[in-house]
Amino acid sequence: MKTLKIYKIGGEILNNKDYLTNFLKKFSLIKNNKILIHGGGKQANEILKKLNIIPNIIKGRRITNFETLEVLISIYSGLINKRVVAELQKYNCNALGLSGCDGNVIKGVKRVIKKINFGYVGDLDKNSINIELIKLLILNGITPVFSAIIHDGKGNLLNTNADSIAASISTRLVNDFDLELNFCFDKIGVLNDINDEKSIIEVINEEYFKLLVNKNMIHSGMIPKLENSFLVLKEGVKKVFLRHAKNIDKNICTKII
Amino acid sequence: MKTLKIYKIGGEILNNKDYLTNFLKKFSLIKNNKILIHGGGKQANEILKKLNIIPNIIKGRRITNFETLEVLISIYSGLINKRVVAELQKYNCNALGLSGCDGNVIKGVKRVIKKINFGYVGDLDKNSINIELIKLLILNGITPVFSAIIHDGKGNLLNTNADSIAASISTRLVNDFDLELNFCFDKIGVLNDINDEKSIIEVINEEYFKLLVNKNMIHSGMIPKLENSFLVLKEGVKKVFLRHAKNIDKNICTKII
Repeated sequence: MKTLKIYKIGGEILNNKDYLTNFLKKFSLIKNNKILIHGGGKQANEILKKLNIIPNIIKGRRITNFETLEVLISIYSGLINKRVVAELQKYNCNALGLSGCDGNVIKGVKRVIKKINFGYVGDLDKNSINIELIKLLILNGITPVFSAIIHDGKGNLLNTNADSIAASISTRLVNDFDLELNFCFDKIGVLNDINDEKSIIEVINEEYFKLLVNKNMIHSGMIPKLENSFLVLKEGVKKVFLRHAKNIDKNICTKII
Repeated sequence: MKTLKIYKIGGEILNNKDYLTNFLKKFSLIKNNKILIHGGGKQANEILKKLNIIPNIIKGRRITNFETLEVLISIYSGLINKRVVAELQKYNCNALGLSGCDGNVIKGVKRVIKKINFGYVGDLDKNSINIELIKLLILNGITPVFSAIIHDGKGNLLNTNADSIAASISTRLVNDFDLELNFCFDKIGVLNDINDEKSIIEVINEEYFKLLVNKNMIHSGMIPKLENSFLVLKEGVKKVFLRHAKNIDKNICTKII
Protein backbone atom coordinates (compact mmCIF):
# COMPACT_ATOMS: atom_id res chain seq x y z
CA MET A 1 0.00 0.00 0.00
CA LYS A 2 1.03 3.58 -0.60
CA THR A 3 1.80 5.80 2.35
CA LEU A 4 -0.51 8.66 3.30
CA LYS A 5 0.88 11.26 5.69
CA ILE A 6 -1.56 13.33 7.70
CA TYR A 7 -0.44 16.51 9.46
CA LYS A 8 -2.33 18.58 12.00
CA ILE A 9 -1.14 22.08 12.85
CA GLY A 10 -2.52 24.17 15.69
CA GLY A 11 -3.08 27.86 16.35
CA GLU A 12 0.41 28.41 17.75
CA ILE A 13 1.87 27.57 14.32
CA LEU A 14 -0.74 29.50 12.35
CA ASN A 15 -0.12 32.53 14.53
CA ASN A 16 3.61 32.66 13.79
CA LYS A 17 4.32 33.68 10.20
CA ASP A 18 7.85 32.20 10.24
CA TYR A 19 6.71 28.87 11.68
CA LEU A 20 3.83 28.68 9.22
CA THR A 21 5.81 29.54 6.10
CA ASN A 22 8.59 27.16 7.12
CA PHE A 23 6.05 24.40 7.73
CA LEU A 24 4.13 24.95 4.48
CA LYS A 25 7.31 24.96 2.41
CA LYS A 26 8.45 21.67 3.94
CA PHE A 27 4.96 20.18 3.75
CA SER A 28 4.75 20.96 0.04
CA LEU A 29 8.03 19.11 -0.55
CA ILE A 30 6.67 15.82 0.87
CA LYS A 31 6.39 13.45 -2.06
CA ASN A 32 3.88 11.09 -0.44
CA ASN A 33 0.12 11.54 -0.59
CA LYS A 34 -0.72 13.99 2.17
CA ILE A 35 -3.50 15.78 4.02
CA LEU A 36 -3.34 18.87 6.22
CA ILE A 37 -5.74 19.73 9.05
CA HIS A 38 -5.57 23.11 10.77
CA GLY A 39 -7.00 24.75 13.86
CA GLY A 40 -7.11 28.49 14.32
CA GLY A 41 -8.44 29.33 17.76
CA LYS A 42 -5.93 32.07 18.46
CA GLN A 43 -6.76 33.96 15.25
CA ALA A 44 -10.47 33.65 15.95
CA ASN A 45 -10.01 35.05 19.46
CA GLU A 46 -8.40 38.20 18.05
CA ILE A 47 -11.31 38.85 15.70
CA LEU A 48 -13.87 38.05 18.42
CA LYS A 49 -12.15 40.67 20.56
CA LYS A 50 -12.34 43.28 17.77
CA LEU A 51 -16.07 42.52 17.44
CA ASN A 52 -16.51 42.79 21.22
CA ILE A 53 -17.54 39.13 21.48
CA ILE A 54 -15.93 37.73 24.62
CA PRO A 55 -14.52 34.21 24.11
CA ASN A 56 -16.06 31.84 26.62
CA ILE A 57 -13.73 28.93 27.33
CA ILE A 58 -14.60 26.39 30.04
CA LYS A 59 -11.99 23.75 30.88
CA GLY A 60 -10.16 24.39 27.61
CA ARG A 61 -13.31 23.99 25.55
CA ARG A 62 -14.95 26.86 23.72
CA ILE A 63 -18.59 27.68 24.32
CA THR A 64 -19.84 28.56 20.86
CA ASN A 65 -22.86 30.83 20.68
CA PHE A 66 -24.31 31.72 17.27
CA GLU A 67 -22.38 34.97 16.98
CA THR A 68 -19.13 33.17 17.81
CA LEU A 69 -19.91 30.37 15.35
CA GLU A 70 -20.25 32.90 12.51
CA VAL A 71 -16.79 34.26 13.32
CA LEU A 72 -15.28 30.75 13.54
CA ILE A 73 -16.72 29.76 10.15
CA SER A 74 -15.39 33.00 8.65
CA ILE A 75 -11.90 32.62 10.12
CA TYR A 76 -11.38 28.82 10.00
CA SER A 77 -13.09 28.00 6.68
CA GLY A 78 -12.42 31.40 5.11
CA LEU A 79 -9.41 33.42 6.09
CA ILE A 80 -7.08 30.72 7.47
CA ASN A 81 -8.06 27.90 5.13
CA LYS A 82 -7.73 30.02 1.98
CA ARG A 83 -4.48 31.69 3.09
CA VAL A 84 -2.95 28.25 3.77
CA VAL A 85 -4.21 26.85 0.45
CA ALA A 86 -2.99 29.88 -1.52
CA GLU A 87 0.45 29.66 0.09
CA LEU A 88 0.68 25.92 -0.66
CA GLN A 89 -0.22 26.67 -4.29
CA LYS A 90 2.69 29.10 -4.34
CA TYR A 91 4.97 26.17 -3.42
CA ASN A 92 3.41 24.04 -6.19
CA CYS A 93 1.39 21.89 -3.83
CA ASN A 94 -2.07 21.49 -5.39
CA ALA A 95 -4.04 22.07 -2.19
CA LEU A 96 -7.83 22.24 -1.95
CA GLY A 97 -9.59 23.52 1.17
CA LEU A 98 -12.46 21.58 2.66
CA SER A 99 -14.87 22.16 5.50
CA GLY A 100 -17.15 19.30 6.57
CA CYS A 101 -20.03 20.49 4.39
CA ASP A 102 -17.93 20.50 1.20
CA GLY A 103 -18.77 17.35 -0.74
CA ASN A 104 -20.48 16.19 2.48
CA VAL A 105 -17.03 15.20 3.65
CA ILE A 106 -17.57 15.23 7.45
CA LYS A 107 -20.83 15.23 9.33
CA GLY A 108 -21.41 15.50 13.04
CA VAL A 109 -24.09 16.12 15.63
CA LYS A 110 -24.52 19.09 17.92
CA ARG A 111 -23.23 18.10 21.33
CA VAL A 112 -26.03 17.09 23.68
CA ILE A 113 -26.49 19.47 26.59
CA LYS A 114 -25.50 17.81 29.86
CA LYS A 115 -23.93 19.98 32.56
CA ILE A 116 -22.52 22.50 30.09
CA ASN A 117 -24.24 23.82 26.97
CA PHE A 118 -21.37 24.02 24.51
CA GLY A 119 -23.57 25.70 21.89
CA TYR A 120 -22.73 25.14 18.24
CA VAL A 121 -20.11 22.50 18.89
CA GLY A 122 -20.25 19.25 16.98
CA ASP A 123 -19.05 15.79 17.80
CA LEU A 124 -17.99 14.34 14.51
CA ASP A 125 -19.39 11.09 13.24
CA LYS A 126 -16.41 9.06 12.09
CA ASN A 127 -18.55 6.79 9.94
CA SER A 128 -19.91 9.79 8.03
CA ILE A 129 -16.50 10.69 6.61
CA ASN A 130 -16.73 10.66 2.82
CA ILE A 131 -13.55 8.70 2.15
CA GLU A 132 -14.51 8.27 -1.51
CA LEU A 133 -14.19 12.04 -2.01
CA ILE A 134 -10.90 12.18 -0.10
CA LYS A 135 -9.51 9.33 -2.20
CA LEU A 136 -10.79 10.90 -5.44
CA LEU A 137 -8.89 14.10 -4.64
CA ILE A 138 -5.71 12.38 -3.49
CA LEU A 139 -5.60 10.05 -6.46
CA ASN A 140 -5.89 13.10 -8.71
CA GLY A 141 -2.85 14.71 -7.14
CA ILE A 142 -4.81 17.08 -4.91
CA THR A 143 -3.89 17.72 -1.25
CA PRO A 144 -6.98 18.22 0.95
CA VAL A 145 -6.65 20.96 3.60
CA PHE A 146 -9.30 20.66 6.31
CA SER A 147 -10.67 23.34 8.62
CA ALA A 148 -12.34 22.28 11.86
CA ILE A 149 -15.86 23.21 10.75
CA ILE A 150 -18.28 20.35 10.08
CA HIS A 151 -22.00 20.17 9.23
CA ASP A 152 -24.98 18.21 10.50
CA GLY A 153 -26.63 17.48 7.15
CA LYS A 154 -29.58 19.65 8.19
CA GLY A 155 -28.06 22.90 7.02
CA ASN A 156 -26.17 23.72 10.22
CA LEU A 157 -22.45 24.23 10.59
CA LEU A 158 -20.66 23.23 13.79
CA ASN A 159 -17.31 23.95 15.37
CA THR A 160 -15.26 20.88 16.18
CA ASN A 161 -11.80 19.85 17.25
CA ALA A 162 -9.05 19.67 14.62
CA ASP A 163 -7.22 16.87 16.48
CA SER A 164 -10.36 14.71 16.30
CA ILE A 165 -10.68 15.36 12.56
CA ALA A 166 -7.05 14.30 12.04
CA ALA A 167 -7.50 11.16 14.13
CA SER A 168 -10.84 10.19 12.54
CA ILE A 169 -9.73 10.68 8.94
CA SER A 170 -6.60 8.63 9.69
CA THR A 171 -8.47 5.62 11.01
CA ARG A 172 -11.01 5.69 8.17
CA LEU A 173 -8.25 5.40 5.57
CA VAL A 174 -6.20 2.55 7.06
CA ASN A 175 -7.58 0.08 4.51
CA ASP A 176 -6.47 2.24 1.60
CA PHE A 177 -3.09 3.55 2.72
CA ASP A 178 -0.26 2.99 5.18
CA LEU A 179 -1.18 5.78 7.55
CA GLU A 180 1.21 8.14 9.32
CA LEU A 181 -0.28 10.78 11.60
CA ASN A 182 1.68 13.83 12.76
CA PHE A 183 0.51 16.24 15.43
CA CYS A 184 2.60 19.39 14.88
CA PHE A 185 2.92 22.24 17.33
CA ASP A 186 5.54 24.52 18.86
CA LYS A 187 7.23 21.95 21.12
CA ILE A 188 9.70 19.35 19.89
CA GLY A 189 7.72 16.50 21.42
CA VAL A 190 6.73 15.18 24.84
CA LEU A 191 9.31 16.35 27.36
CA ASN A 192 10.26 14.81 30.71
CA ASP A 193 11.02 18.35 31.86
CA ILE A 194 8.89 20.99 30.14
CA ASN A 195 11.72 23.55 30.50
CA ASP A 196 14.40 21.31 28.99
CA GLU A 197 14.19 20.45 25.30
CA LYS A 198 16.94 17.89 25.79
CA SER A 199 14.57 15.86 27.94
CA ILE A 200 12.51 14.80 24.91
CA ILE A 201 10.91 11.38 25.25
CA GLU A 202 11.73 9.72 21.94
CA VAL A 203 9.30 6.85 22.26
CA ILE A 204 6.26 6.66 24.49
CA ASN A 205 3.75 3.89 25.10
CA GLU A 206 0.44 3.94 26.93
CA GLU A 207 1.90 2.59 30.16
CA TYR A 208 4.55 5.29 30.40
CA PHE A 209 1.98 7.93 29.39
CA LYS A 210 -0.28 6.90 32.30
CA LEU A 211 2.67 7.11 34.63
CA LEU A 212 3.41 10.67 33.47
CA VAL A 213 -0.25 11.64 33.87
CA ASN A 214 -0.32 10.22 37.41
CA LYS A 215 2.84 12.16 38.24
CA ASN A 216 1.22 15.31 36.80
CA MET A 217 4.23 15.57 34.52
CA ILE A 218 2.36 16.05 31.26
CA HIS A 219 0.98 19.28 29.82
CA SER A 220 -2.84 19.40 29.79
CA GLY A 221 -3.13 20.05 26.02
CA MET A 222 -0.91 17.05 25.37
CA ILE A 223 -3.22 14.57 27.10
CA PRO A 224 -6.01 14.40 24.45
CA LYS A 225 -3.37 14.31 21.67
CA LEU A 226 -1.75 11.28 23.28
CA GLU A 227 -5.06 9.60 24.06
CA ASN A 228 -6.07 10.10 20.42
CA SER A 229 -2.73 8.65 19.34
CA PHE A 230 -3.08 5.39 21.30
CA LEU A 231 -6.61 5.04 19.96
CA VAL A 232 -5.68 5.43 16.29
CA LEU A 233 -2.75 3.01 16.63
CA LYS A 234 -5.19 0.38 17.89
CA GLU A 235 -7.38 1.06 14.88
CA GLY A 236 -4.62 0.40 12.35
CA VAL A 237 -2.73 3.66 11.88
CA LYS A 238 0.89 2.59 11.36
CA LYS A 239 2.84 5.54 12.82
CA VAL A 240 2.03 8.48 15.07
CA PHE A 241 4.43 11.33 15.85
CA LEU A 242 4.25 14.44 18.01
CA ARG A 243 6.67 17.05 16.73
CA HIS A 244 7.49 20.69 16.21
CA ALA A 245 6.10 21.96 12.89
CA LYS A 246 9.64 23.01 11.94
CA ASN A 247 10.86 19.42 12.28
CA ILE A 248 8.62 17.58 9.83
CA ASP A 249 11.70 16.80 7.74
CA LYS A 250 13.81 15.74 10.73
CA ASN A 251 13.91 12.80 13.07
CA ILE A 252 13.34 14.96 16.17
CA CYS A 253 10.01 13.98 17.67
CA THR A 254 8.15 11.77 20.10
CA LYS A 255 7.04 8.53 18.52
CA ILE A 256 3.87 7.04 19.99
CA ILE A 257 3.79 3.25 20.12
CA MET B 1 -23.54 16.95 -25.36
CA LYS B 2 -24.94 17.15 -21.86
CA THR B 3 -26.28 20.45 -20.58
CA LEU B 4 -24.48 22.38 -17.85
CA LYS B 5 -26.43 25.14 -16.15
CA ILE B 6 -24.49 27.91 -14.44
CA TYR B 7 -26.19 30.25 -11.97
CA LYS B 8 -24.86 33.45 -10.47
CA ILE B 9 -26.59 35.00 -7.46
CA GLY B 10 -25.78 38.42 -6.07
CA GLY B 11 -25.78 40.05 -2.66
CA GLU B 12 -29.44 41.09 -2.82
CA ILE B 13 -30.42 37.39 -2.89
CA LEU B 14 -27.89 36.33 -0.24
CA ASN B 15 -29.14 39.10 2.03
CA ASN B 16 -32.76 37.93 1.97
CA LYS B 17 -33.23 34.63 3.81
CA ASP B 18 -36.52 33.85 2.03
CA TYR B 19 -35.11 34.56 -1.42
CA LEU B 20 -32.00 32.52 -0.66
CA THR B 21 -33.74 29.46 0.79
CA ASN B 22 -36.27 29.49 -2.04
CA PHE B 23 -33.47 29.71 -4.61
CA LEU B 24 -31.31 26.99 -3.03
CA LYS B 25 -34.27 24.59 -2.79
CA LYS B 26 -35.10 25.09 -6.46
CA PHE B 27 -31.43 24.99 -7.49
CA SER B 28 -30.96 21.64 -5.73
CA LEU B 29 -33.90 20.18 -7.71
CA ILE B 30 -32.26 20.91 -11.07
CA LYS B 31 -31.37 17.55 -12.55
CA ASN B 32 -28.73 18.84 -14.98
CA ASN B 33 -25.10 19.30 -14.12
CA LYS B 34 -24.86 22.66 -12.44
CA ILE B 35 -22.55 25.25 -10.92
CA LEU B 36 -23.32 28.12 -8.55
CA ILE B 37 -21.35 31.37 -8.24
CA HIS B 38 -22.14 33.83 -5.48
CA GLY B 39 -21.27 37.39 -4.56
CA GLY B 40 -21.70 38.78 -1.07
CA GLY B 41 -20.83 42.49 -1.03
CA LYS B 42 -23.76 43.50 1.15
CA GLN B 43 -22.86 41.01 3.89
CA ALA B 44 -19.22 42.08 3.78
CA ASN B 45 -20.22 45.74 4.15
CA GLU B 46 -22.08 44.95 7.38
CA ILE B 47 -19.04 43.26 8.92
CA LEU B 48 -16.69 45.99 7.68
CA LYS B 49 -18.95 48.48 9.47
CA LYS B 50 -18.81 46.48 12.73
CA LEU B 51 -15.02 46.46 12.46
CA ASN B 52 -14.99 50.21 11.75
CA ILE B 53 -13.52 49.68 8.29
CA ILE B 54 -15.22 52.13 5.94
CA PRO B 55 -16.10 50.55 2.56
CA ASN B 56 -14.54 52.58 -0.22
CA ILE B 57 -16.52 52.23 -3.44
CA ILE B 58 -15.62 54.28 -6.51
CA LYS B 59 -17.94 54.07 -9.54
CA GLY B 60 -19.49 50.86 -8.24
CA ARG B 61 -16.11 49.22 -7.75
CA ARG B 62 -14.70 48.41 -4.36
CA ILE B 63 -11.27 49.67 -3.37
CA THR B 64 -9.81 46.73 -1.47
CA ASN B 65 -7.10 47.54 1.06
CA PHE B 66 -5.46 44.67 2.96
CA GLU B 67 -7.77 44.95 5.97
CA THR B 68 -10.80 44.88 3.69
CA LEU B 69 -9.42 41.93 1.73
CA GLU B 70 -9.14 39.88 4.94
CA VAL B 71 -12.80 40.54 5.68
CA LEU B 72 -13.85 39.69 2.11
CA ILE B 73 -11.96 36.37 2.20
CA SER B 74 -13.56 35.57 5.57
CA ILE B 75 -17.08 36.42 4.46
CA TYR B 76 -17.10 35.29 0.80
CA SER B 77 -14.96 32.12 1.06
CA GLY B 78 -15.92 31.37 4.66
CA LEU B 79 -19.26 32.43 6.05
CA ILE B 80 -21.33 32.77 2.86
CA ASN B 81 -19.74 29.94 0.88
CA LYS B 82 -20.05 27.41 3.70
CA ARG B 83 -23.57 28.47 4.68
CA VAL B 84 -24.70 28.06 1.05
CA VAL B 85 -22.94 24.70 0.70
CA ALA B 86 -24.35 23.39 4.02
CA GLU B 87 -27.87 24.44 3.03
CA LEU B 88 -27.54 22.76 -0.38
CA GLN B 89 -26.37 19.58 1.39
CA LYS B 90 -29.58 19.76 3.45
CA TYR B 91 -31.52 19.60 0.16
CA ASN B 92 -29.42 16.64 -1.00
CA CYS B 93 -27.37 18.61 -3.48
CA ASN B 94 -23.76 17.47 -3.10
CA ALA B 95 -22.21 20.93 -3.18
CA LEU B 96 -18.52 21.72 -2.70
CA GLY B 97 -17.27 25.25 -2.14
CA LEU B 98 -14.33 26.58 -4.10
CA SER B 99 -12.31 29.76 -4.06
CA GLY B 100 -9.82 30.37 -6.84
CA CYS B 101 -6.90 28.94 -4.84
CA ASP B 102 -8.66 25.61 -4.20
CA GLY B 103 -7.23 23.08 -6.62
CA ASN B 104 -5.69 26.08 -8.42
CA VAL B 105 -9.09 26.52 -10.03
CA ILE B 106 -8.94 30.25 -10.96
CA LYS B 107 -5.91 32.47 -11.11
CA GLY B 108 -5.75 36.19 -11.77
CA VAL B 109 -3.46 39.17 -11.59
CA LYS B 110 -3.65 42.17 -9.31
CA ARG B 111 -5.13 45.02 -11.28
CA VAL B 112 -2.47 47.38 -12.59
CA ILE B 113 -2.63 50.85 -11.02
CA LYS B 114 -3.70 53.46 -13.57
CA LYS B 115 -5.81 56.36 -12.36
CA ILE B 116 -7.28 54.43 -9.45
CA ASN B 117 -5.46 51.98 -7.16
CA PHE B 118 -8.07 49.30 -6.64
CA GLY B 119 -5.86 47.51 -4.09
CA TYR B 120 -6.24 43.74 -3.76
CA VAL B 121 -8.54 43.38 -6.74
CA GLY B 122 -7.79 40.76 -9.33
CA ASP B 123 -8.60 40.52 -12.99
CA LEU B 124 -9.11 36.84 -13.61
CA ASP B 125 -7.18 35.00 -16.27
CA LYS B 126 -9.74 32.99 -18.21
CA ASN B 127 -7.12 30.64 -19.59
CA SER B 128 -5.98 29.74 -16.08
CA ILE B 129 -9.33 28.16 -15.17
CA ASN B 130 -8.71 24.54 -14.19
CA ILE B 131 -11.51 22.98 -16.21
CA GLU B 132 -10.15 19.48 -15.55
CA LEU B 133 -10.91 19.92 -11.84
CA ILE B 134 -14.36 21.35 -12.54
CA LYS B 135 -15.14 18.44 -14.86
CA LEU B 136 -13.76 15.90 -12.36
CA LEU B 137 -16.13 17.22 -9.70
CA ILE B 138 -19.16 17.48 -11.97
CA LEU B 139 -18.68 14.01 -13.44
CA ASN B 140 -18.55 12.68 -9.88
CA GLY B 141 -21.93 14.18 -9.05
CA ILE B 142 -20.53 17.18 -7.19
CA THR B 143 -21.87 20.73 -7.63
CA PRO B 144 -19.13 23.38 -7.41
CA VAL B 145 -20.06 26.56 -5.53
CA PHE B 146 -17.68 29.44 -6.26
CA SER B 147 -16.93 32.49 -4.17
CA ALA B 148 -15.47 35.56 -5.87
CA ILE B 149 -12.01 35.19 -4.33
CA ILE B 150 -9.17 34.15 -6.66
CA HIS B 151 -5.41 33.77 -6.23
CA ASP B 152 -2.34 34.89 -8.14
CA GLY B 153 -0.28 31.70 -7.79
CA LYS B 154 2.23 33.63 -5.69
CA GLY B 155 0.44 33.14 -2.41
CA ASN B 156 -1.86 36.16 -2.64
CA LEU B 157 -5.63 36.14 -2.65
CA LEU B 158 -7.57 38.73 -4.63
CA ASN B 159 -11.12 39.98 -4.69
CA THR B 160 -12.83 39.73 -8.06
CA ASN B 161 -16.22 40.05 -9.69
CA ALA B 162 -18.64 37.11 -9.44
CA ASP B 163 -20.26 37.95 -12.81
CA SER B 164 -16.86 37.65 -14.49
CA ILE B 165 -16.26 34.27 -12.86
CA ALA B 166 -19.65 33.02 -14.10
CA ALA B 167 -19.00 34.29 -17.62
CA SER B 168 -15.43 32.97 -17.79
CA ILE B 169 -16.22 29.50 -16.49
CA SER B 170 -19.09 29.28 -18.98
CA THR B 171 -16.99 30.06 -22.01
CA ARG B 172 -14.23 27.69 -20.94
CA LEU B 173 -16.64 24.75 -20.82
CA VAL B 174 -18.44 25.19 -24.15
CA ASN B 175 -16.51 22.30 -25.71
CA ASP B 176 -17.59 19.89 -22.97
CA PHE B 177 -21.21 20.88 -22.36
CA ASP B 178 -24.17 22.71 -23.83
CA LEU B 179 -23.85 25.81 -21.68
CA GLU B 180 -26.71 27.79 -20.13
CA LEU B 181 -25.79 30.84 -18.04
CA ASN B 182 -28.26 32.45 -15.63
CA PHE B 183 -27.69 35.78 -13.91
CA CYS B 184 -30.10 35.77 -10.96
CA PHE B 185 -31.05 38.81 -8.90
CA ASP B 186 -34.10 40.50 -7.40
CA LYS B 187 -35.65 41.81 -10.63
CA ILE B 188 -37.60 39.64 -13.05
CA GLY B 189 -35.42 40.65 -15.99
CA VAL B 190 -34.61 43.72 -18.05
CA LEU B 191 -37.56 46.10 -17.89
CA ASN B 192 -38.61 48.81 -20.33
CA ASP B 193 -39.93 50.72 -17.32
CA ILE B 194 -38.02 50.01 -14.13
CA ASN B 195 -41.18 50.61 -12.06
CA ASP B 196 -43.38 48.26 -14.06
CA GLU B 197 -42.68 44.53 -13.91
CA LYS B 198 -45.13 44.00 -16.77
CA SER B 199 -42.75 45.88 -19.04
CA ILE B 200 -40.26 42.97 -19.04
CA ILE B 201 -38.25 42.63 -22.23
CA GLU B 202 -38.51 38.92 -23.04
CA VAL B 203 -35.76 38.84 -25.63
CA ILE B 204 -32.97 41.32 -26.08
CA ASN B 205 -30.19 41.54 -28.65
CA GLU B 206 -27.12 43.73 -28.74
CA GLU B 207 -28.68 46.31 -31.04
CA TYR B 208 -31.66 46.87 -28.80
CA PHE B 209 -29.39 46.90 -25.74
CA LYS B 210 -27.31 49.70 -27.26
CA LEU B 211 -30.49 51.61 -28.00
CA LEU B 212 -31.55 51.31 -24.34
CA VAL B 213 -28.12 52.41 -23.14
CA ASN B 214 -28.21 55.45 -25.44
CA LYS B 215 -31.67 56.33 -24.14
CA ASN B 216 -30.35 55.95 -20.58
CA MET B 217 -33.13 53.44 -20.00
CA ILE B 218 -31.02 50.70 -18.49
CA HIS B 219 -29.96 50.29 -14.87
CA SER B 220 -26.20 50.78 -14.35
CA GLY B 221 -25.63 47.37 -12.67
CA MET B 222 -27.37 45.70 -15.62
CA ILE B 223 -24.93 47.02 -18.21
CA PRO B 224 -21.88 44.80 -17.40
CA LYS B 225 -24.20 41.78 -17.02
CA LEU B 226 -25.57 42.36 -20.52
CA GLU B 227 -22.16 43.11 -21.99
CA ASN B 228 -20.86 39.87 -20.45
CA SER B 229 -23.85 38.04 -21.90
CA PHE B 230 -23.29 39.16 -25.49
CA LEU B 231 -19.64 38.25 -25.13
CA VAL B 232 -20.24 34.68 -23.88
CA LEU B 233 -22.84 34.03 -26.59
CA LYS B 234 -20.23 34.91 -29.20
CA GLU B 235 -17.85 32.46 -27.51
CA GLY B 236 -20.23 29.52 -27.77
CA VAL B 237 -22.47 29.64 -24.70
CA LYS B 238 -25.87 28.40 -25.95
CA LYS B 239 -28.31 30.30 -23.72
CA VAL B 240 -28.12 33.29 -21.39
CA PHE B 241 -30.93 34.46 -19.12
CA LEU B 242 -31.39 37.32 -16.70
CA ARG B 243 -34.00 36.43 -14.09
CA HIS B 244 -35.24 36.74 -10.56
CA ALA B 245 -33.71 34.06 -8.31
CA LYS B 246 -37.25 32.94 -7.43
CA ASN B 247 -38.01 32.21 -11.08
CA ILE B 248 -35.32 29.70 -11.97
CA ASP B 249 -38.04 27.09 -12.47
CA LYS B 250 -40.28 29.42 -14.50
CA ASN B 251 -40.20 30.93 -17.96
CA ILE B 252 -40.23 34.49 -16.63
CA CYS B 253 -36.96 36.14 -17.65
CA THR B 254 -35.08 38.14 -20.22
CA LYS B 255 -33.40 35.97 -22.80
CA ILE B 256 -30.23 37.42 -24.28
CA ILE B 257 -29.67 36.59 -27.96
